[in-house]
Amino acid sequence: MTVMEPVDWRAALPWPAIDAHKHARGRLGVVSGKATQTGAARLAARAGLRIGAGVVTIFCPPDATAVIAPAIEAIMLTPFGSDEALAEAAAELDAMVIGPAAGVNDATQANVRAIAGTGAAMVVDADGLTAFEGWPEDLFEVLDRDDVLTPHEGEFRRLFPGLLDQDREAAAVNAARRAGAVVVLKGAATIIAAPDGRRSVNGNGSRWLATAGSGDVLAGMIGGLMAQRMDSFEAARAAVWMHAEAAQAFGPGLIAEDLPDRIPTVLAALYSQIG
Amino acid sequence: MTVMEPVDWRAALPWPAIDAHKHARGRLGVVSGKATQTGAARLAARAGLRIGAGVVTIFCPPDATAVIAPAIEAIMLTPFGSDEALAEAAAELDAMVIGPAAGVNDATQANVRAIAGTGAAMVVDADGLTAFEGWPEDLFEVLDRDDVLTPHEGEFRRLFPGLLDQDREAAAVNAARRAGAVVVLKGAATIIAAPDGRRSVNGNGSRWLATAGSGDVLAGMIGGLMAQRMDSFEAARAAVWMHAEAAQAFGPGLIAEDLPDRIPTVLAALYSQIG
Amino acid sequence: MTVMEPVDWRAALPWPAIDAHKHARGRLGVVSGKATQTGAARLAARAGLRIGAGVVTIFCPPDATAVIAPAIEAIMLTPFGSDEALAEAAAELDAMVIGPAAGVNDATQANVRAIAGTGAAMVVDADGLTAFEGWPEDLFEVLDRDDVLTPHEGEFRRLFPGLLDQDREAAAVNAARRAGAVVVLKGAATIIAAPDGRRSVNGNGSRWLATAGSGDVLAGMIGGLMAQRMDSFEAARAAVWMHAEAAQAFGPGLIAEDLPDRIPTVLAALYSQIG
Amino acid sequence: MTVMEPVDWRAALPWPAIDAHKHARGRLGVVSGKATQTGAARLAARAGLRIGAGVVTIFCPPDATAVIAPAIEAIMLTPFGSDEALAEAAAELDAMVIGPAAGVNDATQANVRAIAGTGAAMVVDADGLTAFEGWPEDLFEVLDRDDVLTPHEGEFRRLFPGLLDQDREAAAVNAARRAGAVVVLKGAATIIAAPDGRRSVNGNGSRWLATAGSGDVLAGMIGGLMAQRMDSFEAARAAVWMHAEAAQAFGPGLIAEDLPDRIPTVLAALYSQIG
Repeated sequence: MTVMEPVDWRAALPWPAIDAHKHARGRLGVVSGKATQTGAARLAARAGLRIGAGVVTIFCPPDATAVIAPAIEAIMLTPFGSDEALAEAAAELDAMVIGPAAGVNDATQANVRAIAGTGAAMVVDADGLTAFEGWPEDLFEVLDRDDVLTPHEGEFRRLFPGLLDQDREAAAVNAARRAGAVVVLKGAATIIAAPDGRRSVNGNGSRWLATAGSGDVLAGMIGGLMAQRMDSFEAARAAVWMHAEAAQAFGPGLIAEDLPDRIPTVLAALYSQIG
Repeated sequence: MTVMEPVDWRAALPWPAIDAHKHARGRLGVVSGKATQTGAARLAARAGLRIGAGVVTIFCPPDATAVIAPAIEAIMLTPFGSDEALAEAAAELDAMVIGPAAGVNDATQANVRAIAGTGAAMVVDADGLTAFEGWPEDLFEVLDRDDVLTPHEGEFRRLFPGLLDQDREAAAVNAARRAGAVVVLKGAATIIAAPDGRRSVNGNGSRWLATAGSGDVLAGMIGGLMAQRMDSFEAARAAVWMHAEAAQAFGPGLIAEDLPDRIPTVLAALYSQIG
Repeated sequence: MTVMEPVDWRAALPWPAIDAHKHARGRLGVVSGKATQTGAARLAARAGLRIGAGVVTIFCPPDATAVIAPAIEAIMLTPFGSDEALAEAAAELDAMVIGPAAGVNDATQANVRAIAGTGAAMVVDADGLTAFEGWPEDLFEVLDRDDVLTPHEGEFRRLFPGLLDQDREAAAVNAARRAGAVVVLKGAATIIAAPDGRRSVNGNGSRWLATAGSGDVLAGMIGGLMAQRMDSFEAARAAVWMHAEAAQAFGPGLIAEDLPDRIPTVLAALYSQIG
Repeated sequence: MTVMEPVDWRAALPWPAIDAHKHARGRLGVVSGKATQTGAARLAARAGLRIGAGVVTIFCPPDATAVIAPAIEAIMLTPFGSDEALAEAAAELDAMVIGPAAGVNDATQANVRAIAGTGAAMVVDADGLTAFEGWPEDLFEVLDRDDVLTPHEGEFRRLFPGLLDQDREAAAVNAARRAGAVVVLKGAATIIAAPDGRRSVNGNGSRWLATAGSGDVLAGMIGGLMAQRMDSFEAARAAVWMHAEAAQAFGPGLIAEDLPDRIPTVLAALYSQIG
C-alpha cells in the first residue's frame, strides 16, 4: 500500500461556489453526550464548521441544553428526547457524526440505527463503535458504503475480533468489506479503506495527536467534508491528513481545542495549490 | 447598475468625535431568539458593537437570560415578556435588529410591529422576514424608509413573490419601492436598493460567507452603523462591503465567529483613507 | 493646569518585588450588579488583575453566582446577601470598586457606606455615584481622601450641581475638595483632582473609548493600582493615561473587552522605561 | 545547593512515542472545589493537559457540575459525592492534583486520604496542605515518595512548624524527609527536595508569578508530568522552571490564565534542544 499524498485527494476537496449559500454548502449534525460530557460534540461540531459545512447542528439530550447553549454561536442546537425524534430532526442533514462521548449503551445503539435510516451519511466514532461490542453485525447491517467508522485499535478489536492478527493494512481492508463502509483505522500510520477495495495509508501522522479530544475533532472534520458531498473515502483521506498536518505544525503542547482553529491555515495552503 | 466602491460611501461613515461618549455614539438593540437559539443575536450584537455603536443591548425572552448573561461583558441584557414590553424597552434606542433566530411565528410578527412603532430604525432579517410570508403587506405598512430588510433569495421570494422573475437588480429596486424601505438582496453580488430609487451592487462578494451566522453578523453591522445615525442606504452599502472584505481577507475556513473581530482591521484601513 | 506626562507618575507605579506573593501584592474587590448585569464587574475585575492586584474577588448577589462562576478562573467569587455581609467579606481587602452596573437604588447606597466603613480604599463609579443623586452629602461624609470618584459629566452634575458652570478643571478641583476624595472627571481631557489641591489633566484621551464598558475597565484599573498601595491620586492619573494609551493603540473597532488584555503591552513599555 | 539548569532534568522529560495514544500518554485527575470556586481546578487541569497528560478529568462536587461543564471541551468531568466515590473514580489515574480551592475542611482531608489509597501519584497543594494544619502527621503517614507537596512559605509553616527557622534549603530537605514525599517550597528561589536527599534550587523565578492562580497552574503542570510517569522530583523541577520561564517571557501584566497557553512555546524550545 503506498503512502498517500495530498495530490491523491486534493482535487476532490469541496470549495464553495461564488454564489453558494450556507444550506447548499452542506448540513452537518453532531450527536452530543449527556450534560457532563458535551465537550466532545462541541469539538467535532466546530471542526465540521471550520472545514466548510455550511450549517452545523448539535443534537443533545434535553438536560444538556443549558450546558451547550452558552458555549456556541454559529453552531445550532436541537434537543432530542428519543431515537425517533433524532431521526426526524436529522432528516434534512447531509451528514451526521455520532459517537464522541455518546455513552456505551443501548440508547447510543438506537441512535446509530435511527440515523442510519435517514439520508444522512454517517460517521460512527468512539462510543458509537463500542456500543456494538459483541453485536457488530447489528451495526454492519445498517451501514451504507457512504458511512465511515473511525476506530482506534482498541475499538477496532471490539468490532472486528481477530482481524488485527493480520497486518494493519489487511485488517482495515477486510474490515471495510465486512462492515460495508469506509473504515479509518487510527494510529501512527492511519489506514483508510473503502468497501470497494480502495485503501490508503497516511504518512504525516503526528505524535502530538495523542491527546484527549483529537479523535472527536477528526470525526467532525470527516463529517464536515462529507456534508459537502465529498466522497466518504476521499473525505476520510483528506481529513486524516489535514488533522495531522495541523497537529504537526503546532508541535509540543497541542491540545484538541487548538485543532479546529488551525484548519483555516491548512485549508488555505491546499486552496492555493489548486490555483 | 455600477459596482460600488468604498469611495461611494466612505465619507458617510460615522466616526466618534474626540469628546464623544457612548450614548451619543449610538444605541443599538438586538432581539434574541429562545434559549436554545441565542447565538445569532450574540453574533449580531458583537458585530454592532465592533462597528461602533456605543451601547448595545440584547433583548431576550426571560428563559434565555441564563444562557446569554455568562457570555457577554460589554453588551447589555434586558429580558422582555411581551411585544409591549419590548417596545417600551426599545424606546431609547437609535436602531434595532430583529430576525436572527427569532422564530417564524406570530410573536416575531408582533415584535417587529412593536419596534416599528418606536423611533428606532429597524433591520429586519431572517425569521423576521419569513414570519410575514403570505402577509408581506402587514410588514410593509409598518416600515419606514430608514428601515432595512436583508433577505437572501429564498426570503426575498417569500416577501416579493414573482419579483425575481426579473433580473436581480430590478427586483431589488422594485422591492424597495414596494416595501418603502431599504432592501439588501444578498448573494454573490448583493444588491442594495432604497425606496427613493438609489441602488448599488456590491463587487467584493466572498464565497467564504456561505457559513451559518454570517448573515447575523451583517445584520448587526448594518444596525450598528444605523445606530450611529448613518443613512440606512449608506449603512447597508458600507456594511455589505466591509463584511465581505473581512471574509475575503480571512479566506478558507472562515466561520461567522471570526467576522466581528475582523471589523477593526477593515475599519482601520478605511479610517486611514479619510486622512 | 499642565497636561500630565507618564514621567509625572511613572516612579510611583507599583511593581512586585522578586519575592512578592499574591496577597502582599494587593487584594482588590469588585461589587457586581444583579444576574443580568454582571459583565461590568467582570471587566473591572479583569482589568484590576491585569494591572497587578495579586488577588481579585468579585462580590455578587447570590443569584448572580451561576452567571459569574463559569466565566472566571483566576478571579475569585464571593456571594453576599446584605451590606453587613459585604462589609465583613471586604474586611481583608486593600481596595474595592463599586458602581459598575450596581443599580441605582438604596442597596447600592448601603453597599457604598458599608465598604467605606472598612479599611479598603474605594473607587465609586457609575451607579455608585448616581445612587446618591439628591443626597451627595450622604456620600461625601463617608469618603476618605484615599477614595476615588470617577464620574462622567452627567454623573458629575448629579453629585455637584452647578459646579460645571465653571470650567472643567476648576469644577473637578472644587469637587475633590467638597467630596474629600479624589475626583476623576472623565471626558476628552480627563481631569484628576485630589482633595489636597493636586490636579492634573490628561492629554492622551482617545475617541475610541466611547464604547460601553470602557468606564468599568478604568475603574478596575484605578482600583487595581490602589490595591497595590499606590497613592490614589497617582493611581488615577496612571490608570487614566494607560487606559487611553491602550485604546489609542487599538484604534477603530475597539470594544471594552479588548482593553484588559492590552494592559500588559502598556505596562511593559512603562516597565522598560524605569530601567 | 547549586542552582538547577534545564540540562539537569531535560533528558527526563516525557515525549509521546510516534504511536502513542492518549491513555498511554498518561491520565491526570484534578479535584475541584465547590461551585463558586472551580476556577483553580480548571487552571490546573488545562495546565496538565497542555504539558502532555493524554487524558485529564476534573472531579467535582455534584453542584459544581453546571459551572464546569460549559467551560471545558477536551477536559472531562466526573462529579463525586463522597471520598469513597472519589477513590473509586480515581482508580484508573496515573496522577491526581488536590488542593487548589478545595476548602480547608474535613472533606478535603478525607479526599486526600482517599486518593492516597489509590495507585495515583498525588500533588497536594494549597487547601490540601492547610487542611492538615495541626495534624501534619495525618498527612505524612499516607504519603508516598512519589507524592509531591507544593507549599508556599505560609503553608510550609503550617505543616512544618519551626523548620523555617533554618535556612530555606535545609528546611525543604528536612521537610521532604519528614513527609516522605517531594517538597516544593515555593518562593523567589523555589526549593525542590526529595525524601531520598535529592534537592535543587530554581534560578529563574519570576516576580510576575505573584498573581492569583499561578500556584494552581504549577500544581497542574507537576501533575501533568507525573501522569506521564516522569519521576516526581524531576517533574517538580521541570515544572517549576517551565512555569517561571513562561511567566518571565510574558512579563508585566501576567495573569494565571495566560500561563497554560504559554506552555507550548516553552515545551517547543526544550524539544528542539533534545535533537
